[in-house]
Amino acid sequence: MSKNKYRNYYDNVSERAVKVIPLGGLEMIGMNITAYEYRNSIIVVDCGLSFPEEDMLGVDLVVPDITYLIQNAEKIRGFFITHGHEDHIGALPYILKQLNIPVYATRLTMAIIGLKLDEHELTESVERHIVEYGNVIEAGDFSVEYIRVNHSISDSAALAITSPAGTIIHTGDFKVDYSPLFGEPTDLSRFAELGQKGVLALLSDSTNAMREGFTPSEQKVASNLNHVFASYPSSRIIISTFASHIDRIQLVADAAVQYGRKVAIDGRSMVSLVELGREMGYINCPDNLIVDAEQIQNYKDSELVIVMTGSQGEAAAALSRAAAGQHKKISITANDVIVFSSSPIPGNEKAVQKLVNEIAISGATVINKEMHVSGHACVEEIKLMYSLTKPKYAIPVHGEFQHRKANAEIAKLLQIPKDHIFLLNSGDVLTLSDSRGEVTGAVPHGGIMVDGLGVGDVGNVVIRDRQNLAQNGIVVVTFALSKATGELMSKPEMITRGVVYVRESENILTEARQVAFDTIAAAVASDPNDWNRIKAVVRDKVGSYFWQTIKRNPVVLPIILEVE
Amino acid sequence: MSKNKYRNYYDNVSERAVKVIPLGGLEMIGMNITAYEYRNSIIVVDCGLSFPEEDMLGVDLVVPDITYLIQNAEKIRGFFITHGHEDHIGALPYILKQLNIPVYATRLTMAIIGLKLDEHELTESVERHIVEYGNVIEAGDFSVEYIRVNHSISDSAALAITSPAGTIIHTGDFKVDYSPLFGEPTDLSRFAELGQKGVLALLSDSTNAMREGFTPSEQKVASNLNHVFASYPSSRIIISTFASHIDRIQLVADAAVQYGRKVAIDGRSMVSLVELGREMGYINCPDNLIVDAEQIQNYKDSELVIVMTGSQGEAAAALSRAAAGQHKKISITANDVIVFSSSPIPGNEKAVQKLVNEIAISGATVINKEMHVSGHACVEEIKLMYSLTKPKYAIPVHGEFQHRKANAEIAKLLQIPKDHIFLLNSGDVLTLSDSRGEVTGAVPHGGIMVDGLGVGDVGNVVIRDRQNLAQNGIVVVTFALSKATGELMSKPEMITRGVVYVRESENILTEARQVAFDTIAAAVASDPNDWNRIKAVVRDKVGSYFWQTIKRNPVVLPIILEVE
Repeated sequence: MSKNKYRNYYDNVSERAVKVIPLGGLEMIGMNITAYEYRNSIIVVDCGLSFPEEDMLGVDLVVPDITYLIQNAEKIRGFFITHGHEDHIGALPYILKQLNIPVYATRLTMAIIGLKLDEHELTESVERHIVEYGNVIEAGDFSVEYIRVNHSISDSAALAITSPAGTIIHTGDFKVDYSPLFGEPTDLSRFAELGQKGVLALLSDSTNAMREGFTPSEQKVASNLNHVFASYPSSRIIISTFASHIDRIQLVADAAVQYGRKVAIDGRSMVSLVELGREMGYINCPDNLIVDAEQIQNYKDSELVIVMTGSQGEAAAALSRAAAGQHKKISITANDVIVFSSSPIPGNEKAVQKLVNEIAISGATVINKEMHVSGHACVEEIKLMYSLTKPKYAIPVHGEFQHRKANAEIAKLLQIPKDHIFLLNSGDVLTLSDSRGEVTGAVPHGGIMVDGLGVGDVGNVVIRDRQNLAQNGIVVVTFALSKATGELMSKPEMITRGVVYVRESENILTEARQVAFDTIAAAVASDPNDWNRIKAVVRDKVGSYFWQTIKRNPVVLPIILEVE
Repeated sequence: MSKNKYRNYYDNVSERAVKVIPLGGLEMIGMNITAYEYRNSIIVVDCGLSFPEEDMLGVDLVVPDITYLIQNAEKIRGFFITHGHEDHIGALPYILKQLNIPVYATRLTMAIIGLKLDEHELTESVERHIVEYGNVIEAGDFSVEYIRVNHSISDSAALAITSPAGTIIHTGDFKVDYSPLFGEPTDLSRFAELGQKGVLALLSDSTNAMREGFTPSEQKVASNLNHVFASYPSSRIIISTFASHIDRIQLVADAAVQYGRKVAIDGRSMVSLVELGREMGYINCPDNLIVDAEQIQNYKDSELVIVMTGSQGEAAAALSRAAAGQHKKISITANDVIVFSSSPIPGNEKAVQKLVNEIAISGATVINKEMHVSGHACVEEIKLMYSLTKPKYAIPVHGEFQHRKANAEIAKLLQIPKDHIFLLNSGDVLTLSDSRGEVTGAVPHGGIMVDGLGVGDVGNVVIRDRQNLAQNGIVVVTFALSKATGELMSKPEMITRGVVYVRESENILTEARQVAFDTIAAAVASDPNDWNRIKAVVRDKVGSYFWQTIKRNPVVLPIILEVE
């Protein structure tokens, strides 16, 4: 489709139409960011990062391409954040460096954003607004209302985004917990009220759209966790969960009070989030309950519960280090009970299994069943959300394609016409009006790789080089040529890294070196000035030698030094 | 523990004792190989490979370290193979090149081994004996009986290994299917008979020891698969499974006959195994049922079922290529129904999810629930095996530590004393006699990495280099020195691969080059003959520059050329 077609169509839309432009989050888990545009106003919902795919070697994280936002910077009224998870806030510091616009979020969400801005030295420069449930923020042609939802972090919100084109509900990540341990349930009444008034579109969480029924209440985890405390009175209990799962940590604190144990927190990110949670009143417990991780040795096993990160098998996290005997303060013993209070995120299954095995070998008891509930709506909750909000258009978001497709099937089941359901791609411009919904254009989108301090300087070329180096290693062939005489001025050097074990492969390397030398001598003799050709034949001959001898394809890098 | 302690103890064992020596398979899935030794006789059960761990970059497969077998080559009476899966036969060609001893296996197992020996040009040199269930092979002090078991490949066997020390039962991979679709059920009577006579030890499959109940019969897959054929009469049906799952392919053939479709097989390994299965009578179907994959275009969707490899999301397999639009003969359309007739092997979950998404995006229907049953015994079947064989010692094998531990718990539940249950490590020498069971020594063991044609020439050094290159790329700094004068004879060259995108990072690279040049000039000026020091400061300064500027740690490789 040509851009022109889009532009013409859009120019002809005379009625009130709003554009929904997801800039990420639809092709991969994470990196949620969606722009809403009405004439001269743009608001942006969430600004998440994603973690690198397996083949993105050496990449730390991935942030969204915001070319479209930069091109339209003067229109943007603010970032409206739904909750404080990495896949919804993680890219903010990177993006705010390019685009300084106000950020709106609930209290806890903003506090977590604050930690990130501190790290990036952005605290002073970014305008921040704390929002409460029920608040309505005016933002150009938009007004944005924050609505309470349950999720696996406190202060999560859905947004009702109203423009002259109508009201769009963006659920963010949500579930319906009728009896949450802390706080109130999802504000179903408000969703119903909006539904009665008329909702143009619903963008809803698809993560669990392939799971039947309802996501269980956090109450279930509480009762199972208490059962562990009751069953292992003389063991040390170690509970591993996500650093940001403040409710879960509260739950552990409550159990610790009940069973007379102290709580130690381990892992840098968890320590700072627990501090924040306590300061802000999201974690409530007696002052002397939480003890410093340095003090662990001063308590008997039966007196202590340790909460730490690493339940996803991350090699650098506290639990993995403890299991590998590389943790300064904690070594796992046969008297430990290790509770995995999370489910493996897709892709982490094997790492988690490996960790469970390591722990099991140390003799400790591992409990990893029914110690976690999801933070996302299952099929019946998704149905409930559609039924309350009665949207004209359904736009499944947040989930892989198969999850979004399953969400679309639910919408269909609930009588939303097929052509009112949109399975979008990132970058699509969906134009919605009361009479019509259509993809009318496309804007730049994609993931920008962050490696160390570099944002975007690692692209496909660098990744391909790394993949080649990773699979096959490198052979560097270098030699000096005299510019004046065209003569070889040195014995060529050949050095390898990651190809073969040098000490045990002397024959192969000696032969390869000979091939390189002969090739260079012949090529130089034939034309000492055509360096490109000399390099090409060296690459070819040395590469062929390794392939024929050991069926490996190292990167061959010829370097010619010019000697005066 | 010192070797001496072991030796002394073993010398003192005057009674009849047999040694059980697992050389692999206990720390990882795959690479099953176990030696049994009685005085001057050794037999080896299975000789499997394993697939590389994620961090073994560029490695194709891993085979066991057989140093102990080579040291005791004259004692070895044969390889006794339980069944034809890679994790039990895959290392045979590599090992037989070092150790030419006879191979015993059932008919289909031997045929699959034959395909491998052909590939490695070993057909002529290896002595092979086809065994039938009930056969007893005399092998030095051992006699080995083949016993029928069910598994996910035909002709699977358990072994009853008798020496003067008693009878050890080695189950291989097994399950109990009371109503297998093809062939007979596991020979429970024979296990019971051996149990009545007295069994010294049971080495049993632990894979599913954490799954309650019984593994369902293959009948269940048959009925679910027929349901798919009945439900999608006008769609093309594509079924993806393991190449070696000959029974599953028979099942598809039967359904195809019933529903009037032709069968096309795609994927090199599957085509050759189906040919073999048909020649040998393991796959029975009308001659004209199976059509060439080249002929696919000549059939309507409703007339065809395609069977292909790739259900694990392997990028190079037929299904992945078809989903990515890179398959010459097959492109997936919205009228396809794709059945995943396998479960993801741990570690493959994400790749499978990715593939399912790709297929879903093309509009095809994906069916991946209840289309597979495991080939391994669940808890109740493991209990049954212990109860029939009544072993004095229990040695859980085949499974990660947590699975083997779960198997050990089952043994304990069935009244086997705790000190008669052994959770071994690879390389352990377990000495068993009627009165005593103890780990009495350790032998070399481990995985030898195979990359291309090289076996063992990629070790930890090479892997570490590849990991560094993969994460950070490489910076080569090279320059010429005059030996005579100690003068720099060329401008140094600096070339990077996999560090930064060169075109967009000119500033960084120019600065880095300047750092390299200044460092070299200073170091050469200070002492042109101390090349080690010159190289060390170049590594240090250039490395620091990249770390400070972009927080990356490339491999820095200085090369000095000597000019006469």
